[in-house]
Amino acid sequence: MSFLLFGAEPNGGKGDPAYTKDGKLIFPADYRTWTFVTSGVGMTYGPTGTKDAEGNPRFDNVFVNPEAYKEFLKTGTWPDKTQLVLEVRGSESKASINKDGHFQTKTIAVEVHVKDTSKKGWGFYGFPPGTAAAEMIPKTQNCYSCHEQNGAVDTTFVQFYPTLQDVAQEKGTWKAAH
Amino acid sequence: MSFLLFGAEPNGGKGDPAYTKDGKLIFPADYRTWTFVTSGVGMTYGPTGTKDAEGNPRFDNVFVNPEAYKEFLKTGTWPDKTQLVLEVRGSESKASINKDGHFQTKTIAVEVHVKDTSKKGWGFYGFPPGTAAAEMIPKTQNCYSCHEQNGAVDTTFVQFYPTLQDVAQEKGTWKAAH
Repeated sequence: MSFLLFGAEPNGGKGDPAYTKDGKLIFPADYRTWTFVTSGVGMTYGPTGTKDAEGNPRFDNVFVNPEAYKEFLKTGTWPDKTQLVLEVRGSESKASINKDGHFQTKTIAVEVHVKDTSKKGWGFYGFPPGTAAAEMIPKTQNCYSCHEQNGAVDTTFVQFYPTLQDVAQEKGTWKAAH
Repeated sequence: MSFLLFGAEPNGGKGDPAYTKDGKLIFPADYRTWTFVTSGVGMTYGPTGTKDAEGNPRFDNVFVNPEAYKEFLKTGTWPDKTQLVLEVRGSESKASINKDGHFQTKTIAVEVHVKDTSKKGWGFYGFPPGTAAAEMIPKTQNCYSCHEQNGAVDTTFVQFYPTLQDVAQEKGTWKAAH
Protein backbone atom coordinates (compact mmCIF):
# COMPACT_ATOMS: atom_id res chain seq x y z
CA MET A 1 0.00 0.00 0.00
CA SER A 2 1.30 3.39 -0.95
CA PHE A 3 0.95 6.39 1.33
CA LEU A 4 1.47 8.73 -1.60
CA LEU A 5 -1.26 7.25 -3.72
CA PHE A 6 -3.94 6.41 -1.22
CA GLY A 7 -3.28 8.93 1.55
CA ALA A 8 -2.12 8.21 5.07
CA GLU A 9 -3.60 5.12 6.64
CA PRO A 10 -4.92 6.08 10.07
CA ASN A 11 -4.88 2.49 11.25
CA GLY A 12 -1.45 1.42 9.99
CA GLY A 13 -2.92 -0.53 7.09
CA LYS A 14 -4.81 -3.07 9.17
CA GLY A 15 -8.21 -1.76 8.10
CA ASP A 16 -9.56 -0.96 11.57
CA PRO A 17 -12.00 1.96 11.66
CA ALA A 18 -10.50 5.32 12.65
CA TYR A 19 -12.48 8.27 13.96
CA THR A 20 -12.06 12.02 14.26
CA LYS A 21 -11.96 13.56 17.75
CA ASP A 22 -15.69 14.27 17.50
CA GLY A 23 -16.47 10.67 16.60
CA LYS A 24 -16.88 10.80 12.83
CA LEU A 25 -15.65 7.82 10.81
CA ILE A 26 -12.61 8.74 8.70
CA PHE A 27 -13.11 7.68 5.07
CA PRO A 28 -11.09 4.48 4.47
CA ALA A 29 -9.41 5.89 1.37
CA ASP A 30 -7.53 2.70 0.51
CA TYR A 31 -10.62 0.43 0.41
CA ARG A 32 -10.06 -0.46 -3.26
CA THR A 33 -6.96 -2.41 -2.16
CA TRP A 34 -9.05 -4.39 0.36
CA THR A 35 -10.63 -7.78 -0.31
CA PHE A 36 -13.38 -7.75 -2.93
CA VAL A 37 -16.53 -9.49 -1.70
CA THR A 38 -18.92 -9.23 -4.66
CA SER A 39 -20.60 -6.97 -7.17
CA GLY A 40 -24.30 -6.71 -8.01
CA VAL A 41 -26.12 -4.72 -10.67
CA GLY A 42 -29.46 -2.89 -10.52
CA MET A 43 -30.30 -4.33 -7.11
CA THR A 44 -33.27 -2.80 -5.34
CA TYR A 45 -32.40 -2.57 -1.68
CA GLY A 46 -29.41 -0.21 -1.75
CA PRO A 47 -28.99 3.39 -0.58
CA THR A 48 -29.29 4.89 -4.09
CA GLY A 49 -31.62 4.36 -7.05
CA THR A 50 -31.18 1.30 -9.23
CA LYS A 51 -30.43 3.18 -12.48
CA ASP A 52 -29.64 6.57 -13.95
CA ALA A 53 -31.82 8.82 -16.13
CA GLU A 54 -30.76 6.94 -19.29
CA GLY A 55 -31.69 3.60 -17.74
CA ASN A 56 -28.13 2.40 -17.15
CA PRO A 57 -28.17 0.28 -13.98
CA ARG A 58 -25.93 0.98 -11.03
CA PHE A 59 -23.32 -1.45 -9.80
CA ASP A 60 -22.76 -2.20 -6.10
CA ASN A 61 -19.19 -3.31 -5.36
CA VAL A 62 -18.56 -4.64 -1.86
CA PHE A 63 -15.12 -4.65 -0.21
CA VAL A 64 -14.00 -5.57 3.30
CA ASN A 65 -10.77 -5.03 5.23
CA PRO A 66 -8.58 -8.12 4.60
CA GLU A 67 -8.23 -9.02 8.29
CA ALA A 68 -12.01 -9.29 8.64
CA TYR A 69 -12.33 -11.42 5.50
CA LYS A 70 -9.69 -13.87 6.77
CA GLU A 71 -11.46 -14.04 10.12
CA PHE A 72 -14.82 -14.72 8.44
CA LEU A 73 -13.26 -17.67 6.59
CA LYS A 74 -12.25 -19.12 9.96
CA THR A 75 -15.37 -18.36 12.02
CA GLY A 76 -18.27 -17.70 9.64
CA THR A 77 -18.88 -14.24 11.05
CA TRP A 78 -17.39 -10.75 11.21
CA PRO A 79 -14.95 -9.79 13.94
CA ASP A 80 -15.03 -6.54 15.89
CA LYS A 81 -13.64 -3.63 13.78
CA THR A 82 -14.95 -5.03 10.49
CA GLN A 83 -15.46 -2.39 7.80
CA LEU A 84 -17.68 -3.42 4.89
CA VAL A 85 -17.59 -0.88 2.09
CA LEU A 86 -20.42 -0.55 -0.45
CA GLU A 87 -19.24 1.37 -3.51
CA VAL A 88 -22.02 2.41 -5.90
CA ARG A 89 -20.94 3.10 -9.49
CA GLY A 90 -22.74 4.18 -12.62
CA SER A 91 -22.54 2.19 -15.86
CA GLU A 92 -22.52 2.47 -19.62
CA SER A 93 -23.28 -0.08 -22.31
CA LYS A 94 -22.28 0.30 -25.96
CA ALA A 95 -18.71 1.57 -26.18
CA SER A 96 -15.49 0.37 -27.78
CA ILE A 97 -15.99 -3.28 -28.73
CA ASN A 98 -18.77 -3.88 -26.21
CA LYS A 99 -22.19 -4.26 -27.86
CA ASP A 100 -24.41 -5.22 -24.94
CA GLY A 101 -24.39 -5.55 -21.17
CA HIS A 102 -22.82 -2.93 -18.91
CA PHE A 103 -19.41 -1.86 -17.64
CA GLN A 104 -18.69 0.36 -14.65
CA THR A 105 -18.07 4.10 -14.73
CA LYS A 106 -17.79 6.74 -11.99
CA THR A 107 -18.42 6.41 -8.27
CA ILE A 108 -21.85 7.70 -7.18
CA ALA A 109 -21.59 7.07 -3.43
CA VAL A 110 -19.75 5.02 -0.85
CA GLU A 111 -21.36 3.65 2.30
CA VAL A 112 -19.41 1.96 5.08
CA HIS A 113 -20.90 -0.56 7.52
CA VAL A 114 -18.72 -0.80 10.62
CA LYS A 115 -18.85 -3.33 13.44
CA ASP A 116 -17.41 -1.66 16.52
CA THR A 117 -18.30 -2.66 20.06
CA SER A 118 -17.01 0.71 21.27
CA LYS A 119 -19.86 2.23 19.21
CA LYS A 120 -22.48 -0.30 20.42
CA GLY A 121 -22.29 -2.63 17.43
CA TRP A 122 -22.89 -2.05 13.72
CA GLY A 123 -23.13 1.48 12.33
CA PHE A 124 -23.67 2.90 8.83
CA TYR A 125 -21.77 5.90 7.48
CA GLY A 126 -22.47 7.60 4.15
CA PHE A 127 -19.70 9.17 2.05
CA PRO A 128 -20.77 11.15 -1.00
CA PRO A 129 -17.72 11.66 -3.29
CA GLY A 130 -15.14 13.91 -1.59
CA THR A 131 -16.34 13.36 2.00
CA ALA A 132 -13.39 12.96 4.39
CA ALA A 133 -15.32 11.96 7.54
CA ALA A 134 -18.96 11.13 8.28
CA GLU A 135 -21.24 10.92 11.29
CA MET A 136 -22.98 7.63 11.99
CA ILE A 137 -26.40 7.42 10.35
CA PRO A 138 -28.91 7.40 13.26
CA LYS A 139 -29.87 3.92 14.40
CA THR A 140 -33.53 4.76 13.90
CA GLN A 141 -33.04 4.73 10.11
CA ASN A 142 -34.50 1.78 8.23
CA CYS A 143 -31.13 0.53 6.88
CA TYR A 144 -30.57 -0.91 10.38
CA SER A 145 -33.91 -2.68 10.72
CA CYS A 146 -33.74 -3.99 7.14
CA HIS A 147 -30.26 -5.44 7.70
CA GLU A 148 -31.33 -6.97 11.02
CA GLN A 149 -34.40 -8.60 9.52
CA ASN A 150 -32.94 -9.70 6.20
CA GLY A 151 -29.20 -10.21 6.58
CA ALA A 152 -28.26 -13.90 6.41
CA VAL A 153 -25.26 -13.49 8.75
CA ASP A 154 -24.80 -10.96 11.55
CA THR A 155 -27.08 -8.35 9.90
CA THR A 156 -25.10 -8.51 6.62
CA PHE A 157 -26.27 -9.71 3.21
CA VAL A 158 -24.06 -12.78 2.94
CA GLN A 159 -26.85 -14.40 0.89
CA PHE A 160 -25.46 -12.30 -2.00
CA TYR A 161 -21.74 -13.01 -1.28
CA PRO A 162 -20.87 -16.12 -3.29
CA THR A 163 -17.53 -16.97 -1.65
CA LEU A 164 -18.87 -16.71 1.92
CA GLN A 165 -22.22 -18.53 1.82
CA ASP A 166 -20.79 -22.02 2.22
CA VAL A 167 -18.46 -20.86 5.00
CA ALA A 168 -21.36 -19.45 7.03
CA GLN A 169 -23.46 -22.56 6.51
CA GLU A 170 -20.59 -24.85 7.57
CA LYS A 171 -19.84 -22.75 10.64
CA GLY A 172 -23.51 -22.57 11.65
CA THR A 173 -23.75 -18.78 11.52
CA TRP A 174 -26.30 -18.73 8.69
CA LYS A 175 -29.76 -17.48 9.69
CA ALA A 176 -32.31 -19.77 8.02
CA ALA A 177 -35.05 -17.21 7.35
CA HIS A 178 -33.99 -13.96 5.77
CA MET B 1 -3.29 -15.22 3.35
CA SER B 2 -3.99 -18.71 4.60
CA PHE B 3 -2.18 -21.69 3.20
CA LEU B 4 -4.93 -23.96 4.44
CA LEU B 5 -7.71 -22.10 2.72
CA PHE B 6 -6.09 -21.01 -0.51
CA GLY B 7 -3.39 -23.63 -1.02
CA ALA B 8 0.34 -23.04 -1.06
CA GLU B 9 1.46 -19.91 -2.85
CA PRO B 10 4.05 -20.94 -5.43
CA ASN B 11 5.42 -17.41 -5.68
CA GLY B 12 5.61 -16.53 -1.99
CA GLY B 13 2.51 -14.37 -2.17
CA LYS B 14 3.95 -11.78 -4.58
CA GLY B 15 1.62 -12.77 -7.39
CA ASP B 16 4.26 -13.63 -10.00
CA PRO B 17 3.24 -16.38 -12.41
CA ALA B 18 4.48 -19.86 -11.58
CA TYR B 19 4.76 -22.74 -14.03
CA THR B 20 4.93 -26.50 -13.92
CA LYS B 21 8.09 -28.22 -15.24
CA ASP B 22 6.37 -28.68 -18.61
CA GLY B 23 5.52 -24.98 -18.83
CA LYS B 24 1.87 -24.92 -17.78
CA LEU B 25 0.68 -21.93 -15.75
CA ILE B 26 -0.18 -22.94 -12.17
CA PHE B 27 -3.66 -21.70 -11.21
CA PRO B 28 -3.23 -18.61 -8.97
CA ALA B 29 -5.56 -20.00 -6.29
CA ASP B 30 -5.43 -16.90 -4.09
CA TYR B 31 -6.52 -14.45 -6.80
CA ARG B 32 -9.65 -13.41 -4.84
CA THR B 33 -7.34 -11.75 -2.33
CA TRP B 34 -5.66 -9.74 -5.12
CA THR B 35 -6.64 -6.22 -6.17
CA PHE B 36 -10.09 -5.95 -7.70
CA VAL B 37 -10.04 -4.05 -11.00
CA THR B 38 -13.69 -4.00 -12.09
CA SER B 39 -16.79 -6.04 -12.79
CA GLY B 40 -18.98 -6.00 -15.89
CA VAL B 41 -22.27 -7.73 -16.66
CA GLY B 42 -23.52 -9.35 -19.87
CA MET B 43 -20.60 -8.01 -21.88
CA THR B 44 -20.20 -9.39 -25.37
CA TYR B 45 -16.51 -9.87 -25.97
CA GLY B 46 -15.59 -12.41 -23.31
CA PRO B 47 -14.58 -16.06 -23.54
CA THR B 48 -18.04 -17.41 -22.54
CA GLY B 49 -21.61 -16.57 -23.54
CA THR B 50 -23.26 -13.45 -22.15
CA LYS B 51 -26.12 -15.21 -20.32
CA ASP B 52 -27.40 -18.60 -19.15
CA ALA B 53 -30.38 -20.61 -20.45
CA GLU B 54 -32.77 -18.64 -18.20
CA GLY B 55 -31.47 -15.32 -19.50
CA ASN B 56 -29.49 -14.39 -16.38
CA PRO B 57 -26.44 -12.42 -17.52
CA ARG B 58 -22.90 -13.41 -16.61
CA PHE B 59 -20.61 -11.22 -14.56
CA ASP B 60 -16.94 -10.70 -15.42
CA ASN B 61 -14.83 -9.87 -12.35
CA VAL B 62 -11.26 -8.74 -13.04
CA PHE B 63 -8.44 -9.04 -10.50
CA VAL B 64 -4.72 -8.35 -10.76
CA ASN B 65 -1.77 -9.19 -8.53
CA PRO B 66 -1.31 -6.24 -6.13
CA GLU B 67 2.29 -5.52 -7.17
CA ALA B 68 1.21 -5.02 -10.78
CA TYR B 69 -1.68 -2.73 -9.78
CA LYS B 70 0.66 -0.52 -7.73
CA GLU B 71 3.10 -0.39 -10.63
CA PHE B 72 0.32 0.59 -13.06
CA LEU B 73 -0.61 3.51 -10.79
CA LYS B 74 2.99 4.73 -11.06
CA THR B 75 3.67 4.09 -14.76
CA GLY B 76 0.32 3.73 -16.56
CA THR B 77 1.16 0.27 -17.82
CA TRP B 78 1.64 -3.31 -16.67
CA PRO B 79 5.04 -4.57 -15.49
CA ASP B 80 6.58 -7.88 -16.47
CA LYS B 81 4.96 -10.77 -14.50
CA THR B 82 1.52 -9.15 -14.40
CA GLN B 83 -1.34 -11.62 -13.96
CA LEU B 84 -4.79 -10.31 -14.86
CA VAL B 85 -7.53 -12.74 -13.84
CA LEU B 86 -10.95 -12.74 -15.49
CA GLU B 87 -13.46 -14.61 -13.32
CA VAL B 88 -16.79 -15.33 -15.04
CA ARG B 89 -19.74 -15.94 -12.68
CA GLY B 90 -23.39 -16.75 -13.19
CA SER B 91 -26.16 -14.63 -11.69
CA GLU B 92 -29.65 -14.73 -10.24
CA SER B 93 -32.23 -12.02 -9.80
CA LYS B 94 -35.27 -12.30 -7.50
CA ALA B 95 -34.20 -13.81 -4.18
CA SER B 96 -34.38 -12.75 -0.55
CA ILE B 97 -35.20 -9.04 -0.48
CA ASN B 98 -33.87 -8.36 -3.96
CA LYS B 99 -36.67 -7.70 -6.48
CA ASP B 100 -34.75 -6.71 -9.59
CA GLY B 101 -31.24 -6.55 -11.02
CA HIS B 102 -28.73 -9.37 -10.55
CA PHE B 103 -26.34 -10.73 -7.95
CA GLN B 104 -23.46 -13.12 -8.52
CA THR B 105 -23.55 -16.88 -8.08
CA LYS B 106 -21.10 -19.66 -8.98
CA THR B 107 -17.89 -19.47 -10.97
CA ILE B 108 -18.25 -20.57 -14.61
CA ALA B 109 -14.66 -20.13 -15.77
CA VAL B 110 -11.43 -18.34 -14.97
CA GLU B 111 -9.05 -17.00 -17.58
CA VAL B 112 -5.62 -15.57 -16.79
CA HIS B 113 -3.77 -13.07 -18.98
CA VAL B 114 -0.06 -13.11 -18.12
CA LYS B 115 2.67 -10.72 -19.20
CA ASP B 116 5.92 -12.62 -19.12
CA THR B 117 8.95 -11.72 -21.23
CA SER B 118 10.31 -15.22 -20.64
CA LYS B 119 7.22 -16.45 -22.58
CA LYS B 120 7.53 -13.81 -25.33
CA GLY B 121 4.98 -11.38 -23.90
CA TRP B 122 1.30 -11.74 -23.08
CA GLY B 123 -0.31 -15.17 -22.94
CA PHE B 124 -3.84 -16.39 -22.19
CA TYR B 125 -4.56 -19.45 -20.05
CA GLY B 126 -8.03 -20.94 -19.50
CA PHE B 127 -9.02 -22.60 -16.20
CA PRO B 128 -12.39 -24.36 -16.12
CA PRO B 129 -13.38 -24.96 -12.45
CA GLY B 130 -10.99 -27.45 -10.83
CA THR B 131 -8.11 -26.99 -13.27
CA ALA B 132 -4.74 -26.91 -11.46
CA ALA B 133 -2.51 -25.93 -14.38
CA ALA B 134 -3.14 -24.89 -17.98
CA GLU B 135 -1.20 -24.65 -21.22
CA MET B 136 -0.98 -21.31 -22.97
CA ILE B 137 -3.77 -20.77 -25.49
CA PRO B 138 -2.04 -20.74 -28.92
CA LYS B 139 -1.11 -17.26 -30.08
CA THR B 140 -3.02 -17.84 -33.31
CA GLN B 141 -6.34 -17.65 -31.40
CA ASN B 142 -8.42 -14.52 -31.89
CA CYS B 143 -8.30 -13.45 -28.24
CA TYR B 144 -4.77 -12.21 -28.98
CA SER B 145 -5.59 -10.23 -32.12
CA CYS B 146 -8.75 -8.78 -30.52
CA HIS B 147 -6.81 -7.59 -27.46
CA GLU B 148 -4.05 -6.14 -29.65
CA GLN B 149 -6.48 -4.25 -31.83
CA ASN B 150 -8.93 -3.10 -29.17
CA GLY B 151 -7.12 -2.87 -25.84
CA ALA B 152 -6.67 0.75 -24.75
CA VAL B 153 -3.41 0.05 -22.89
CA ASP B 154 -0.81 -2.62 -23.65
CA THR B 155 -3.38 -5.01 -25.21
CA THR B 156 -5.64 -4.83 -22.13
CA PHE B 157 -9.16 -3.39 -21.86
CA VAL B 158 -8.36 -0.46 -19.59
CA GLN B 159 -11.20 1.42 -21.31
CA PHE B 160 -13.48 -0.61 -19.01
CA TYR B 161 -11.37 -0.19 -15.81
CA PRO B 162 -12.69 2.94 -14.11
CA THR B 163 -9.86 3.48 -11.61
CA LEU B 164 -7.08 3.15 -14.23
CA GLN B 165 -8.31 5.19 -17.20
CA ASP B 166 -7.18 8.56 -15.87
CA VAL B 167 -3.82 7.12 -14.84
CA ALA B 168 -3.14 5.82 -18.35
CA GLN B 169 -4.19 9.08 -19.95
CA GLU B 170 -1.98 11.11 -17.61
CA LYS B 171 0.99 8.82 -18.18
CA GLY B 172 0.53 8.85 -21.96
CA THR B 173 0.07 5.09 -22.30
CA TRP B 174 -3.50 5.33 -23.59
CA LYS B 175 -3.99 4.29 -27.22
CA ALA B 176 -6.34 6.81 -28.83
CA ALA B 177 -8.17 4.48 -31.21
CA HIS B 178 -9.45 1.21 -29.77
